[in-house]
Amino acid sequence: MRVHVVGTGLIGTSLGLALTRHGDEVTLEDAVPTHAALARDLGAGRLPGEGETLDPQLVVVAAPPDVTAGCVATALERWPSAAVTDVASVKGAVLARLRAADADLGRYCGSHPMAGRERSGAVSGRHDLFDGRAWVLTPTAETRPQARELVADVARAAGAAVLELPPEGHDRAVAVVSHVPQLAASLVAARLETLDEDAVALAGQGLRDVTRIAASDPHLWTQILAGNAPAVREVLAGLAEDLDRLLEALAALADGGDAPGARGALAGVIAAGNLGQARIPGKHGAAPTSLETVRVLLPDEPGQLGRLFADIGAIGVNVEEFHLDHGLGQQLGLAEVEVLPAAAAGLAQALGERGWRIHG
Amino acid sequence: MRVHVVGTGLIGTSLGLALTRHGDEVTLEDAVPTHAALARDLGAGRLPGEGETLDPQLVVVAAPPDVTAGCVATALERWPSAAVTDVASVKGAVLARLRAADADLGRYCGSHPMAGRERSGAVSGRHDLFDGRAWVLTPTAETRPQARELVADVARAAGAAVLELPPEGHDRAVAVVSHVPQLAASLVAARLETLDEDAVALAGQGLRDVTRIAASDPHLWTQILAGNAPAVREVLAGLAEDLDRLLEALAALADGGDAPGARGALAGVIAAGNLGQARIPGKHGAAPTSLETVRVLLPDEPGQLGRLFADIGAIGVNVEEFHLDHGLGQQLGLAEVEVLPAAAAGLAQALGERGWRIHG
Repeated sequence: MRVHVVGTGLIGTSLGLALTRHGDEVTLEDAVPTHAALARDLGAGRLPGEGETLDPQLVVVAAPPDVTAGCVATALERWPSAAVTDVASVKGAVLARLRAADADLGRYCGSHPMAGRERSGAVSGRHDLFDGRAWVLTPTAETRPQARELVADVARAAGAAVLELPPEGHDRAVAVVSHVPQLAASLVAARLETLDEDAVALAGQGLRDVTRIAASDPHLWTQILAGNAPAVREVLAGLAEDLDRLLEALAALADGGDAPGARGALAGVIAAGNLGQARIPGKHGAAPTSLETVRVLLPDEPGQLGRLFADIGAIGVNVEEFHLDHGLGQQLGLAEVEVLPAAAAGLAQALGERGWRIHG
Repeated sequence: MRVHVVGTGLIGTSLGLALTRHGDEVTLEDAVPTHAALARDLGAGRLPGEGETLDPQLVVVAAPPDVTAGCVATALERWPSAAVTDVASVKGAVLARLRAADADLGRYCGSHPMAGRERSGAVSGRHDLFDGRAWVLTPTAETRPQARELVADVARAAGAAVLELPPEGHDRAVAVVSHVPQLAASLVAARLETLDEDAVALAGQGLRDVTRIAASDPHLWTQILAGNAPAVREVLAGLAEDLDRLLEALAALADGGDAPGARGALAGVIAAGNLGQARIPGKHGAAPTSLETVRVLLPDEPGQLGRLFADIGAIGVNVEEFHLDHGLGQQLGLAEVEVLPAAAAGLAQALGERGWRIHG
């Protein structure tokens, strides 16, 4: 395949590296020529020669969200026989601008690889960035099958798994599974600012999990959230309504009243969370898997985890999920090994026989 | 020590098991006599003999939150020379009721072991439930030093690390580090109910982390939240104010306006989350530790994790945190190994030399 990449940041460079490795012919450009040259030096593809006329089958626009629509419109004009995609994390806004510009939407198929949000720039590019990640295609009624197939081929060549959603469905989905969780994590973490050091010391694994992504980059997230403002606003407004009902219930209880309705409202929020959480796909995007946890106490020394996993391997059980929890003020770790329910009791017993302290 | 435990659920039974193992003399009672008998059969202590007069040094009330204050008041009257503590997860409400009942507060020191919320009942009791966990003492100005010392001794004998906070400070702290994060996780997870299966498939590790505790028990959490309604309401109201500002900013952006103030508000929320998240103590309750992540691609077969950890052990690097991420629709796992920054580059290189695929 002949693929032209416009924008050689993290995503564009990683895609160039992956496709080059796959045997495709990749050309590169960037609004900042030295960035494109850097991506070339890293092995992501070649730069067009002086006066060379490119004839790509697919143009991938991997520019910053704010300039994506303009770059796509330009690409559709520059290469009248090429298909064009972009990789922006919000699809509706790009499409609306293309429509407004009367672009040739038959050759455009938007897409979004679910990868690579923590670092930026060509230097962070990796040929395996897309390995095993979802790459969502968002074709419209205008999109010709050939354009869609080209984008799917390139996504698969880069190692990704292809999914398909309408643009507005995609934007609503990422609002729910990514943008609103990000905001919730940030809002919860922000509350910690008011606590004394002594009080923060009560933090446990629950808080650590809820707020892990609160460490994300404000600059990048401002662009993402602004680009998906309508969908994020709608989902967040629904959450705010639930929150208002919660606050009312807590106010009724705080004032000493014990209205059964207030307790029912609290229980309803937790129960609704149970239902939603159960819908999240488990490992490998399969249907939700019910797992059981075997907790193992382990001394905090190099080699203990190795010994534990070597024993688990020898016992022949596959680890589905794994977390480390930490004791407060003690040199003890608590390893939470999640396995299929049928394997849990046997694993706990076999580990106990090998001298491990099983916990809870 | 002679310790009398009132209430033989998960916490009471676990405490009895831990103290018996430690060599203390534990007696047990429960409002349901067969529950106390079960705890005895499990080895958590003995039942008082017919007509026996107990002379405990410390009485630990481990009853459900709603009846805790009444049990404490009764215990203070029944044993006029004993110190009394309770283990309820909210302290202000218990204290207020004891004050209203004119109880002898000199012999009372409230406490809260940060352990054991996932299961319930004597059968789930474990002697190591408190190992390495924080156990918060909440003495007041009235609490005599001897009562406080007895509670601290028992907490340490059970394996816990003792912290001290005023009751209202404790309640506010758990509202911030535990109760509000629980509600946020539930509210975010509840939003998933409205998504199609296709859209839920976009869920990644971020969503999984934010919503893990959304699987918690509604019945238990209703009691906890109702008991701490004033503090939870206050913290949640602060979060709701931040949320309102967010919604305003998103509305301004959704309406097509590009007010710089709106983008600034989004960035401000994420930045405030950065600051709060950085305050969360790392491993072993130490000061926040900055860690670096080495990502390793590994085939999903038994033994691969064992091989990885054996190699890491052989390289001599200590793993501080560990997560498994999962490819969508592919039999590949992504192991995120977090280590001290000084060790990251060396570990990545050494693993690469041993044939591991290092990712990102």
